[in-house]
Amino acid sequence: MSTDTAAAAPSTDDTSLGEPATPPPPRGLVTSASYSITVRLTADGDPASIGRIATAVGSAGGAVTAIDVVDSRSDGLTVDVTCSAADAAHSEEVVAALRAVEGVAVRKVSDRTFLLHLGGKLEVASRVPLKTRDDLSMAYTPGVARVCLALADNPDDVRRLTIKGNTVAVVTDGSAVLGLGDIGPGASMPVMEGKAALFKRFADIDAWPIALDTQDVDEIVRTVELIAPGFGGINLEDIAAPRCFEIEARLREKLDIPVFHDDQHGTAIVVLAALRNALRVVDKRLEDVRIVVAGGGAAGTAIVHLMLQAGARHVLVWDREGILSPDDERLSPAKRDLAQRTNPEGRRGELPDALVGADVFVGVSAANVLPVAALAGMNDRAVVFPMANPTPDVDPVGARQHAAVVASGRSDLPNQINNVLAFPGVFRGLLDARAREISDGMLLAAADAIAGVVTDDQLNANYIIPSVFDPAVTPAVAAAVADQARQEPGATAPVGTDEDLTA
Amino acid sequence: MSTDTAAAAPSTDDTSLGEPATPPPPRGLVTSASYSITVRLTADGDPASIGRIATAVGSAGGAVTAIDVVDSRSDGLTVDVTCSAADAAHSEEVVAALRAVEGVAVRKVSDRTFLLHLGGKLEVASRVPLKTRDDLSMAYTPGVARVCLALADNPDDVRRLTIKGNTVAVVTDGSAVLGLGDIGPGASMPVMEGKAALFKRFADIDAWPIALDTQDVDEIVRTVELIAPGFGGINLEDIAAPRCFEIEARLREKLDIPVFHDDQHGTAIVVLAALRNALRVVDKRLEDVRIVVAGGGAAGTAIVHLMLQAGARHVLVWDREGILSPDDERLSPAKRDLAQRTNPEGRRGELPDALVGADVFVGVSAANVLPVAALAGMNDRAVVFPMANPTPDVDPVGARQHAAVVASGRSDLPNQINNVLAFPGVFRGLLDARAREISDGMLLAAADAIAGVVTDDQLNANYIIPSVFDPAVTPAVAAAVADQARQEPGATAPVGTDEDLTA
Repeated sequence: MSTDTAAAAPSTDDTSLGEPATPPPPRGLVTSASYSITVRLTADGDPASIGRIATAVGSAGGAVTAIDVVDSRSDGLTVDVTCSAADAAHSEEVVAALRAVEGVAVRKVSDRTFLLHLGGKLEVASRVPLKTRDDLSMAYTPGVARVCLALADNPDDVRRLTIKGNTVAVVTDGSAVLGLGDIGPGASMPVMEGKAALFKRFADIDAWPIALDTQDVDEIVRTVELIAPGFGGINLEDIAAPRCFEIEARLREKLDIPVFHDDQHGTAIVVLAALRNALRVVDKRLEDVRIVVAGGGAAGTAIVHLMLQAGARHVLVWDREGILSPDDERLSPAKRDLAQRTNPEGRRGELPDALVGADVFVGVSAANVLPVAALAGMNDRAVVFPMANPTPDVDPVGARQHAAVVASGRSDLPNQINNVLAFPGVFRGLLDARAREISDGMLLAAADAIAGVVTDDQLNANYIIPSVFDPAVTPAVAAAVADQARQEPGATAPVGTDEDLTA
Repeated sequence: MSTDTAAAAPSTDDTSLGEPATPPPPRGLVTSASYSITVRLTADGDPASIGRIATAVGSAGGAVTAIDVVDSRSDGLTVDVTCSAADAAHSEEVVAALRAVEGVAVRKVSDRTFLLHLGGKLEVASRVPLKTRDDLSMAYTPGVARVCLALADNPDDVRRLTIKGNTVAVVTDGSAVLGLGDIGPGASMPVMEGKAALFKRFADIDAWPIALDTQDVDEIVRTVELIAPGFGGINLEDIAAPRCFEIEARLREKLDIPVFHDDQHGTAIVVLAALRNALRVVDKRLEDVRIVVAGGGAAGTAIVHLMLQAGARHVLVWDREGILSPDDERLSPAKRDLAQRTNPEGRRGELPDALVGADVFVGVSAANVLPVAALAGMNDRAVVFPMANPTPDVDPVGARQHAAVVASGRSDLPNQINNVLAFPGVFRGLLDARAREISDGMLLAAADAIAGVVTDDQLNANYIIPSVFDPAVTPAVAAAVADQARQEPGATAPVGTDEDLTA
């Protein structure tokens, strides 16, 4: 399961529970730009037509974001109405409402999200001029030959004189894409392109999607190994557990560039950052709190590992088999290992049992696995992070009845836990330090850096984690990761001299 | 051997033979921007200092291209002098000459070519805005999920709704990079980046370098197959013969996107285009002329194949074993196959023997394999294309004594044969037509398109091929290739409807 969502699409069920965070829109629907449409229509000459159009959209529960007049004649107007809906069915209702307006004829309905993806979301740009023959002779032959020969003599300089120094491969096998599951490499490309676009937007990193037409561990490992020379880092993305663990471990062993599975470590970093600040709010210590993690997949395993590295001592993991216990023979090897590290005494039970006397709940399992009432058994000043996407593990609004701090993946509630707070800065720092590997120490440094962006003055139960658009986050993470990398023996590649720049 | 050079760096030997095409620079050296340096120096207050600087560069055989005053004070100037040299040793002589100028002190010498390559030559840009949360919700989660699901249902639309439709992988194993040989994947990256930059510059194609850390045929084939889902075409680059033949053939069999080895087919297209126009000049027919090709590697094999497909009937190939003959047991399987197709009667001999009575010489072998005098045995109105890089197979200036038309890879002589005339347009056409494969018919169409850019009015012995900067070339090639692809059954993928753009 991927928790890497910039915004969650809440269901009607969610907002019907407890107190909504914001006034409910008509019909209880939350509209989203991701379901926005542009409707081209013609209206007769009646001046009131435009007003009726806006009213129709609103009464159908849609939100008008723009009305653009395309053409105006004496007998009427051609207008593009852009509006947000809650989902595909809802957008059809909005169109039906427009069709019913007197004096208005719908000409064409365009889906803005699909239009945005037309032709793909990335392009390659040349960083050098190629206008004249002299330009060509330096950027390409014959001048390029001298640079190639210099690199053959000094392989370390590949990071300095080629794109390798600023480039990350976003690698997937298409097996666990968002919450959609195994949709294959081609269909995963829009996500991988989006990830690459975020790398550029937030950290000026040049990332390229590599969608692999295999789900075989050996083939994935070998392929990434073989394409690695031109990349300065590998970001594994949306690869299903448990094979993501083996792929990452083997690649880290083989490659001299850092390998990072964002669904695991990106999530773990941001959760730990949020947890550190939540514990500041409730005045508890990580070493003391009892933590329950729902979901023993890629994200849950990494979250548990990083929390243990950070000093947590009491963690239980729950999954569909119940509380993970090392003596449970149904468990996969990966889950049994997780059980051994968290529950050596072999405690058994279901999720509500685990929560009795717990201080922290972290959910990376599935929609609504937990009723709000089950949180009542938690200790006072509880911390609850239900992060399943798009629908959280427990309703985050209702959870406030029992918890002092609530955070989730939802963008329409306070405390959104979003991987974009971590991965751009992590790779920025790794590339800046010419890192050859990534360590738990660097992940911990990244989490501390994100937590540290929220000052004591700013910190409160509704602000434990900075906004994804906070410009301080990525530089802080990058600096922390690079500093840590430079302190670890052998973690960074030698920095070349500038000798070859001088004749 | 690669003939894909934008400009050749001639040696002194070359220009000392026969009549030079242009007045010789001082000391017989041809300077090139690819060996240009920028020298920062301080000069005393004497107004004549600047003049002495320019004189010193000129007397050492360098060419001043810019003098920029960085700082001016009453006691003197700080100046950046940019000048071209012929090679690395020559640039040191130029610096020594500057150091000897009275009143001038050299502070720093920078190599402009290395400076240009610092940080690499490509970057990734987002084609979509990512400023607001609404932007994120359409380009990434949750909106992207709908696009992914649509692609899972309609895989043909991957070419339309992702970067696949405009993207080419530039794949190498680093085994035959330019004329440098087997320098490995990392050191090959500056060439692959340059190639990708040319794709963008000339055809607005987004190409990404993939430098493979293996030279095993099976591994190369499998790796390219596995990374193919995100690419609309594969450009193989600088892979040594004979394994390039097998790699290409197997990939063409496996993939549903076109696979093109530029060192073979790009060269063959441009040579055939030049040959068609040369034969227009000398008024001979391709079917009738006797052709000798020197070099039976990747380029030579592809040139011969395409000439035969175009209608040539009399071709002999020469390589280090002599005229390739099917009964020569020293030959590799690839060369024996070439011999069988060109010389079934088993003619033997050396290159001068082959040239007796020949009408056309095409050289893709090595520097100076042939003395100019050996061309005397050719027929009247001979056509000579010595294209080995950086030094041609026979001196192209001297060749004019015996040939009516001469073309080479050199940018400082008329009729430069340069792959950049072909590969951008070829892939533009393939992508425009959503081609699933590339055929000999498309290669022939590309050659005819390049030849056709030169009109009857323009055509003469010194203008058989358009300039690399002629803006008519790439669109003409693209249109010809796309037309041909659309005419061939099964050669193109279905074009999706726009249904998903409408709600």
